[in-house]
Amino acid sequence: MERLSLNQITTKRWSLPEAIAGCAENGVGWIAPWRDKVAEIGVEEAARLLKKHGVRVSSLCRGGFLTGVTPEGSRVDGVADTREAIDEAAALGTDVLVLVVGGIADNDLAGSRQRVADGLGELAPYAMERGVRLGLEPLHPMQCAERSVLSTLDQALALAEEHPAEAVGVVVDEFHVWWDPRVEESIAKAAGRILGFHVCDQLVPLTDTFLGRALPGDGPIDHRRLRACVEAAGYLGPIEVEVFNAELWRQPGDQVLRQVIASYAEHVD
Amino acid sequence: MERLSLNQITTKRWSLPEAIAGCAENGVGWIAPWRDKVAEIGVEEAARLLKKHGVRVSSLCRGGFLTGVTPEGSRVDGVADTREAIDEAAALGTDVLVLVVGGIADNDLAGSRQRVADGLGELAPYAMERGVRLGLEPLHPMQCAERSVLSTLDQALALAEEHPAEAVGVVVDEFHVWWDPRVEESIAKAAGRILGFHVCDQLVPLTDTFLGRALPGDGPIDHRRLRACVEAAGYLGPIEVEVFNAELWRQPGDQVLRQVIASYAEHVD
Repeated sequence: MERLSLNQITTKRWSLPEAIAGCAENGVGWIAPWRDKVAEIGVEEAARLLKKHGVRVSSLCRGGFLTGVTPEGSRVDGVADTREAIDEAAALGTDVLVLVVGGIADNDLAGSRQRVADGLGELAPYAMERGVRLGLEPLHPMQCAERSVLSTLDQALALAEEHPAEAVGVVVDEFHVWWDPRVEESIAKAAGRILGFHVCDQLVPLTDTFLGRALPGDGPIDHRRLRACVEAAGYLGPIEVEVFNAELWRQPGDQVLRQVIASYAEHVD
Repeated sequence: MERLSLNQITTKRWSLPEAIAGCAENGVGWIAPWRDKVAEIGVEEAARLLKKHGVRVSSLCRGGFLTGVTPEGSRVDGVADTREAIDEAAALGTDVLVLVVGGIADNDLAGSRQRVADGLGELAPYAMERGVRLGLEPLHPMQCAERSVLSTLDQALALAEEHPAEAVGVVVDEFHVWWDPRVEESIAKAAGRILGFHVCDQLVPLTDTFLGRALPGDGPIDHRRLRACVEAAGYLGPIEVEVFNAELWRQPGDQVLRQVIASYAEHVD
């Protein structure tokens, strides 16, 4: 259980103070805060509460959107925003910032991928100077147009390898990569670059491209097998339970956290 | 325009006699019938109408479900059903049967993939004897659990290459593969094995994993680029417009076919 981390999106109704206190009360030693929740109380207060409760940060969610468009289609300066996120990660005492790179801008897939590579080139030195590593998280191909032109681990790794391992790595999220016939080989290839491991399951039938996720054990994903792959590749850090699910989001945070702990113990640990 | 084929699912409200007549009246020389529509009038009558109207069959949709489960989760003998489909394809005068291999059975992804390989081993000689080639169509990863444990062109090609090119090949459907960072290389590798090319677009936002498709030009897919890849790999056969879209399905067939022809002319041809 000492590797379990609560990704804060899973307990969406909780504020960051509530989530930190909830983790501490339930013996969960790690949390992955989301930036909008951090912003509600400020980075300094967040850092103070984390220290007070003895809860460590596995990663900060999230920077990115380097293609220059949000999922809603509005323009954003992803590079500038990610620089701020790097500073926030450092202030919170984590060395991992998760990046979601953004969807297709200007109806140009190849050009959008190039923008991601270019943006990463600008950000990598900045991140390395501050002791923060950028974790490229490939998202499920069904989110290619809207959220991430980075769709596979192989693709993320190729991009990461243009930079020092101290600056850029990859994040393995089961929901996004479990279907990939190359997932085991890809994880092995990513040895030394894996900055995070996110677990959750997929709803079947898959009724929603964004919220169609479930607690580990409620879908077809073989968590122990993927965990073994990630460990064989040398990743022994925190394991985040990250679930986007409308029904969970309606429940009180402590009720959700108890289910997170139980499903992790039964299907992942 | 001589390569345009109407995949019958696009004009869902039309019976097969209506679709064949509609193609003939509108100068579309190819059709890809669906087996449930063929069954409504019988294979012999279907063959007679095709001949009468001078419309040729680009492929028959579809056999498969070799993992033994339907999208609704009930059991099916996919091998026996696909044998029947091979006979129907031969009787309709096409040498291509599209295969959708089926989703995950018994919560076992690796085992389900093995069942597909085993089923293909049984079917390939039967198909070759009858002059029908089996076209493995990888489906979008979001359909992995429910419809197809075959998710990428590379994966489909590796499976096909265990058999003679006269028996097993792959079908390139844009909706399913456009996001793949390896799509261009994969198509090139599939030279000599490409048995069909299906065009359509993806709705953005992607509101439905099954029906989230659109006519060419109404989404982010670069049809001319993918068509050039497929042609460079030697495929010069019919190009099917295959669109699963609830709004199109509500419209009369002739109205849909006119839009198919216009979007094909503008974005594909």
